[in-house]
Amino acid sequence: MSSESGLGDGGPFRVGLLGHGTVGGAFHELLDARAEAIEAEVGRRPQVAGVLTRSRGDFDDILERSDLVVELIGGTDPAREYVLRSMAAGRHVVTANKQLLSQHGEELFDAARGHGVQLRFEAAVAGVVPAIRVMNETLAAAYIDRVHGIVNGTTNFILSEMARTGETYAEALRQAQELGYAEADPTEDVTGKDAAAKMAILARLAFNAPVHLDQVSYEGIERVTVDDIEYARELGLSLKLIGTAERIGRGIAVHVHPAFLYSGHPLATVDGAFNAVTIESPAITEITLSGPGAGGPQTASAVLGDVISAMIPPPSLPPPAVEQQIVTDVEFSFYLHLEVADRPGVLAQVAEILGLQGVSIRSVVQKGLGQEARLVMVMHPVLESKFRAAVELISRLEFVRETPRVIRVIEETF
Amino acid sequence: MSSESGLGDGGPFRVGLLGHGTVGGAFHELLDARAEAIEAEVGRRPQVAGVLTRSRGDFDDILERSDLVVELIGGTDPAREYVLRSMAAGRHVVTANKQLLSQHGEELFDAARGHGVQLRFEAAVAGVVPAIRVMNETLAAAYIDRVHGIVNGTTNFILSEMARTGETYAEALRQAQELGYAEADPTEDVTGKDAAAKMAILARLAFNAPVHLDQVSYEGIERVTVDDIEYARELGLSLKLIGTAERIGRGIAVHVHPAFLYSGHPLATVDGAFNAVTIESPAITEITLSGPGAGGPQTASAVLGDVISAMIPPPSLPPPAVEQQIVTDVEFSFYLHLEVADRPGVLAQVAEILGLQGVSIRSVVQKGLGQEARLVMVMHPVLESKFRAAVELISRLEFVRETPRVIRVIEETF
Repeated sequence: MSSESGLGDGGPFRVGLLGHGTVGGAFHELLDARAEAIEAEVGRRPQVAGVLTRSRGDFDDILERSDLVVELIGGTDPAREYVLRSMAAGRHVVTANKQLLSQHGEELFDAARGHGVQLRFEAAVAGVVPAIRVMNETLAAAYIDRVHGIVNGTTNFILSEMARTGETYAEALRQAQELGYAEADPTEDVTGKDAAAKMAILARLAFNAPVHLDQVSYEGIERVTVDDIEYARELGLSLKLIGTAERIGRGIAVHVHPAFLYSGHPLATVDGAFNAVTIESPAITEITLSGPGAGGPQTASAVLGDVISAMIPPPSLPPPAVEQQIVTDVEFSFYLHLEVADRPGVLAQVAEILGLQGVSIRSVVQKGLGQEARLVMVMHPVLESKFRAAVELISRLEFVRETPRVIRVIEETF
Repeated sequence: MSSESGLGDGGPFRVGLLGHGTVGGAFHELLDARAEAIEAEVGRRPQVAGVLTRSRGDFDDILERSDLVVELIGGTDPAREYVLRSMAAGRHVVTANKQLLSQHGEELFDAARGHGVQLRFEAAVAGVVPAIRVMNETLAAAYIDRVHGIVNGTTNFILSEMARTGETYAEALRQAQELGYAEADPTEDVTGKDAAAKMAILARLAFNAPVHLDQVSYEGIERVTVDDIEYARELGLSLKLIGTAERIGRGIAVHVHPAFLYSGHPLATVDGAFNAVTIESPAITEITLSGPGAGGPQTASAVLGDVISAMIPPPSLPPPAVEQQIVTDVEFSFYLHLEVADRPGVLAQVAEILGLQGVSIRSVVQKGLGQEARLVMVMHPVLESKFRAAVELISRLEFVRETPRVIRVIEETF
């Protein structure tokens, strides 16, 4: 596939990297690891052309040698100046900087438009959750009514822990800090300010109206008590720090605050250090996107997705296929439901056959029903062929009264 | 923003529409309704240039007058021929046809590549859930390990109803048919064949390997019993029809079958006629996308998103902003937690103040604690200013022992 980026073909695609902290370092590593796969897909190999940190590198030199600039410094100064100068020099920019966009978004968008370059910022809002792309592309012409978001993983982790363990806010915060989900100074997160910046950006895109961080009212989770969470559970509610951007009459409202969600709400079950966004629009009812919140590798992955998109127009086609073996005998956990006669030795015989086929039992429920009994088991993962062979043998046992019922079980992935 | 589609500027963007059934009709209507908004965003106005149905229209004539062809006939014949001829004539194609793609995907992809046109098919897989776009773009260079999907809304509705009401499969199916979630002949859905076609497409994209519908093993929900669901609940599991595409060793496996999910799995809470897809990749852990499954307006919305993407490279920038009023006094449901003295008339006085401010109580829990009591209430939606005024008055009552605690409550949206 040829590059249509207008940046010239052949040679590597040169990426200037501003900032080399947690995210910057993870991005550098990920780009190196995936460079070959990207070249296979896109036709050019991305390469870090220079790195600027507080102690090394020269911005003008890096700019000169780059096709695209990735800004991962954070904060508004000097990030704003670097981004503006990069765009003025005709470079595309990818940034994860929510402060910058929520305070100087219009200036940056105008500059990008004026210089005919791309400004991409998927990583600024919800970790790997592709809220920006879905809003800008999938819903490009949709009329959006409302966006609800859990856009801060730290506070969602703390509230989930309080609900799960009954810990106080202070205890859950300490726990989050120990696990690396909260910083030593958690102010930006727990006051709701981080979420407010992200909601300003989402509101800008959802409603095509300028929204400045100062226009977002926000409230944090510092005063939430275990009591509140307990009572809410009685009422069928779960507590989240929710950002909302919505149309009200002919205006819009953007706010962040702790809120209870009814159990049927798509965000009610988003637990731990996760982010999620629900976009409501008459044409589609709603779309919900969820995934891990910020974290070095996750944010780096979102940044790299933006870099690839800037390298080429999105592939409207998958690349040519490469043959791969199709595997048909696969490992599963299985659920096995047996209707049996209720007499001694039944479970033992069933267990023996399973054991001989290498099937290991994870849990069993046995229920007597007069002369008969029901045996319900869940197995540890095993190749389907082995399990089917065991079930075939079991079905021939004379005390088995009905065809055994088998259903697969899918484990939690983390 | 100028068009970079290579299809020429100025004049309307002409869409040839093949098929005018439920989805085709909804698409035609949606395109007309959104044409102006799309022109504002993209610079050209899309317009239906011709419609082909069984009884009217001429394919060659429509092709001649179109910049892009939307194929919503379904089935492989004559859809395959129309799509191939459209691409050979240099037209981009958008289709929602899962049969066609899962059986002739490589031929179509090769043809699109050969003729240098786009072939887009977001609506073929999971209703409005943007699984294709996220996989092709956000995760363009990610190494995907596994995709789990609930990609058939009919079967998910039936299983959700069985779990919710204890109805048998036959009863839940009839219910689905009455509500329009299942067709008179539900075979394609309930046997898992519809889901298998969608998983073949997702697997093709996830692993960049040719996957034909015939290579997907599938099993339906016809033999699922209420018993299975009941027992599973005891074990903390919920039952879904799950499609899986995964890497196994150096090969891949693609299959569809009823499966139990542990409660922490991101798909475990996807209920009713919804679709959802979880994509697992080492770099990002996982992303989950969910939304309404197929339905005329929803599918039409996904088709329109593809048409817009084909009209221009994706906007890397939002369009210039338009000022809108920022509303700060917003309606919420509120939760109010009061620590009060336990004596007669307390609830009455609180209720009276709320009533005078126009705040209506939705539910109350009152608990005695010796000399003291706790009052926890949830209100019907009310303007925040009115509610705050009421709380201010309540906090001054001499029997109120602590600062009242207030948290917003977010309702289910449907």
